[in-house]
Amino acid sequence: MITSANAKVEKWGIFEIVLRARSSQNPFTSVKIEASFTHESGDHLVVEGFYDGEDIYKIRFMPNKMGLWKYTVKSNIEDIDGKKGEFICVEPPERVHGPVRTSGYHFRYEDGTPYYPFGTTLYAWVYQKRELVEQTIDSLKDSPFNKVRMCVFPKYFFYNTEEPAMLPLTWQAEHGKYEVVFNLQFFKYFEGLIEKLCDLGIEADVILFHPYDKWGFSKMPQSVDKIYLRYLISRISAFRNVWWSMANEYDFIKPEKDWDDYFQFVQICDPYNHLRSIHQCFKFYDHSKPWVTHASIQWQGSLRSWGGEAGVDIGVNLVPKWRETYKKPIIVDECGYEGDIEYAWGNLPPQEMVNRIWEGVTSGGYVTHGETYRSEDEILWWSKGGRLKGASKERIAFLRRILEGAPQFLEPINFDWDVHCIAKEGEFYLIYFDINQPSVRELNLPDNNKFRIELIDAWEMRITQLGIFSGKCRIRLPGKSYIALRIQKV
Amino acid sequence: MITSANAKVEKWGIFEIVLRARSSQNPFTSVKIEASFTHESGDHLVVEGFYDGEDIYKIRFMPNKMGLWKYTVKSNIEDIDGKKGEFICVEPPERVHGPVRTSGYHFRYEDGTPYYPFGTTLYAWVYQKRELVEQTIDSLKDSPFNKVRMCVFPKYFFYNTEEPAMLPLTWQAEHGKYEVVFNLQFFKYFEGLIEKLCDLGIEADVILFHPYDKWGFSKMPQSVDKIYLRYLISRISAFRNVWWSMANEYDFIKPEKDWDDYFQFVQICDPYNHLRSIHQCFKFYDHSKPWVTHASIQWQGSLRSWGGEAGVDIGVNLVPKWRETYKKPIIVDECGYEGDIEYAWGNLPPQEMVNRIWEGVTSGGYVTHGETYRSEDEILWWSKGGRLKGASKERIAFLRRILEGAPQFLEPINFDWDVHCIAKEGEFYLIYFDINQPSVRELNLPDNNKFRIELIDAWEMRITQLGIFSGKCRIRLPGKSYIALRIQKV
Repeated sequence: MITSANAKVEKWGIFEIVLRARSSQNPFTSVKIEASFTHESGDHLVVEGFYDGEDIYKIRFMPNKMGLWKYTVKSNIEDIDGKKGEFICVEPPERVHGPVRTSGYHFRYEDGTPYYPFGTTLYAWVYQKRELVEQTIDSLKDSPFNKVRMCVFPKYFFYNTEEPAMLPLTWQAEHGKYEVVFNLQFFKYFEGLIEKLCDLGIEADVILFHPYDKWGFSKMPQSVDKIYLRYLISRISAFRNVWWSMANEYDFIKPEKDWDDYFQFVQICDPYNHLRSIHQCFKFYDHSKPWVTHASIQWQGSLRSWGGEAGVDIGVNLVPKWRETYKKPIIVDECGYEGDIEYAWGNLPPQEMVNRIWEGVTSGGYVTHGETYRSEDEILWWSKGGRLKGASKERIAFLRRILEGAPQFLEPINFDWDVHCIAKEGEFYLIYFDINQPSVRELNLPDNNKFRIELIDAWEMRITQLGIFSGKCRIRLPGKSYIALRIQKV
Repeated sequence: MITSANAKVEKWGIFEIVLRARSSQNPFTSVKIEASFTHESGDHLVVEGFYDGEDIYKIRFMPNKMGLWKYTVKSNIEDIDGKKGEFICVEPPERVHGPVRTSGYHFRYEDGTPYYPFGTTLYAWVYQKRELVEQTIDSLKDSPFNKVRMCVFPKYFFYNTEEPAMLPLTWQAEHGKYEVVFNLQFFKYFEGLIEKLCDLGIEADVILFHPYDKWGFSKMPQSVDKIYLRYLISRISAFRNVWWSMANEYDFIKPEKDWDDYFQFVQICDPYNHLRSIHQCFKFYDHSKPWVTHASIQWQGSLRSWGGEAGVDIGVNLVPKWRETYKKPIIVDECGYEGDIEYAWGNLPPQEMVNRIWEGVTSGGYVTHGETYRSEDEILWWSKGGRLKGASKERIAFLRRILEGAPQFLEPINFDWDVHCIAKEGEFYLIYFDINQPSVRELNLPDNNKFRIELIDAWEMRITQLGIFSGKCRIRLPGKSYIALRIQKV
């Protein structure tokens, strides 16, 4: 994927400039290096480089247009300042669609192909032994997951207390400022895994900060935070599958106003404008702020809320409410995990994991998977990866196929007060009944058109033809939970 | 139960004065009749009488003290004004404990015996054919239910559209005021059923108004409403098992301020101060108002809410929150019904019906049952009674036995953020894990005391001894939903 200078580069691949130079100061913090890239059309982008050890500096560039690109290097190291070059950007392979962008309340790759996030959670998989990492990759290959939430910093938390083999960086105060040294071995390895995910068509939802920390990475001086952010972004922003998650449970780390600042800093540093969000524990971040591309929400409960504020509303579907509030795509990046550990956030029955994902999807959002089954070896997927042991994976794959087979994009409609429904009105409806177990349902199909109605059993993964219906009709249902109807105009 | 003048009357039974007199005006609205009762201790109570047809007026009195009671009748009919009499109030049978009163956040009968409400819903059972009513009574006998929510007025709603054989009253405007005529056949029958419930030890939670109406009873002039209330109260308030539920879904009928007025009217008319509450659809009534004895809430969802107001709180147990708000006992009188009809409020799986009752009870409140399974004959328990078809009944009986076997009263404690727990601290804990499926749990038992821990499977109705534990201990759990722990000091 990474192509060195003077070769042909695929669109949304990485063109990398490698420069050798010697600096007497800390090469991570004192050397300025960037390249200005100009496309034959006149498009122009400035990209920062980074120190990669042994007197090597690199500048990585993700071209988003085919044709001739020229560049000029700018640096405070005289030897490399002013270096010029060019490359040809060629058509990407068919499977490559570019970085993911928002599209209204949904997502598309840059080439317009819709992207439906079906994420999973692998907070510290990067820090596990190589064989386990390999097993995780194999598990991902065999899964419906196309997004991984993963931390840059190591994690210290229940079921994840081992000392990692590598730490990303060290910092110390020196002469009134902080000297930061990055662990190149770590970053090379880390970006290698991002590239692996990219090859599998999986987005890397990179969590920049988190509170599960015993090394101090969540409490670094703000100037060190920014040196870290700048360095990381210069290394990995050229990977098309990168998303920036500012933090996991940001409210345990810093106040919201600091995150406002960090968000904007990332926005400035990242020349490609990758997706940016932030994930809360208690207090929702104001995702309507302009630097947030989509809401990344923690919500450990049903997405159909009863009572609402001051008990005035009954039967609020939360995703539509959040869409209304933030005017952006909604991803519930933590809704609890399928598993059986001692904490309620980590012992959902698989039925409820699948149910919450269906609830989210059929009300216009997306919901991320996670798994926390106990085992002898204490390898829990959500933290370390390994093998998936749960029963939700194949059901998520089933739902993903249904969604990808539907018109793009279905939007939530108020079909009836007591169901979730997304639709392309008049054409296609996906109605979900949640845990409820109706044995019958009256429908009022629009416009005197004929509709094919199919019964979907979300848990049994069965689709049954119910027939062709029109107008006001009464549909027999099986009287069990986790049932949906797919209604398509004939 | 009803005893006529000059006999011995059991405490909390009914002493009834029967008077014959003729009035040239509407005997329901123009005749004033009351009796003033004085106990040998000096206690004094004034009770209104009512017209019972064929020139008969009755005054019903529920004595709450043993010993001699004397009375004097007061009326605007000269013939009966000033009549006097007396009776002896004797010890009640062992099974009789008096009317239910609140006791902090709980309930006790007047003699101090705790009363744990395990109610069910039979809105229009009174209006069904006699054989069906008999079947309903048989079903109640064979059930854990000790409270019935029942309407005075007939019901017009889904699965309940038949014209009733009797209507309670008629009214018409005449000479600038409303003439009201009560259907004595109805009221005699109605109070007979209340008495039958009383004999079964079941409280009658009498719903005074409701919106499921095609006869106009929900839209009567306010003066007629009050004539009706006064008449009903004078007939049935002497039944010790009566509760007043001002309305079902009051917010569909009148604004809250009108209900404030009606509440106070009932409070004035009812000499026995029976329990009073009101039930909402959307907008919670302010149950902290002084005329409300307990909150009667509709909440069609889990009682463990996530997100709370503005998404600030995660993991709010609603019952403790409502207790805090209203400072009164909490009964969730409608949490959805076990069944399979087309509407989400009436197609809960039995597991969820049982789960919500467990949630409520193990967080310091009470939750009422209802059942809406479809059948050929359209006899749905919640509306008409008949046979119970669901699977929740025996599980509710199981929970009732557990609660009645526990110290009185257990109060909610914040045992841990992710469970429901009621306890007598240091002595007894009942912890409920809801739908979560932990396979292990760490406990920190207090004071170096020894505790017997039992595993309760709320769905399978099994209690398993786990052993004796103390201090910090780790308990193996079965990794399934609907599990509780009963922890008792040895």
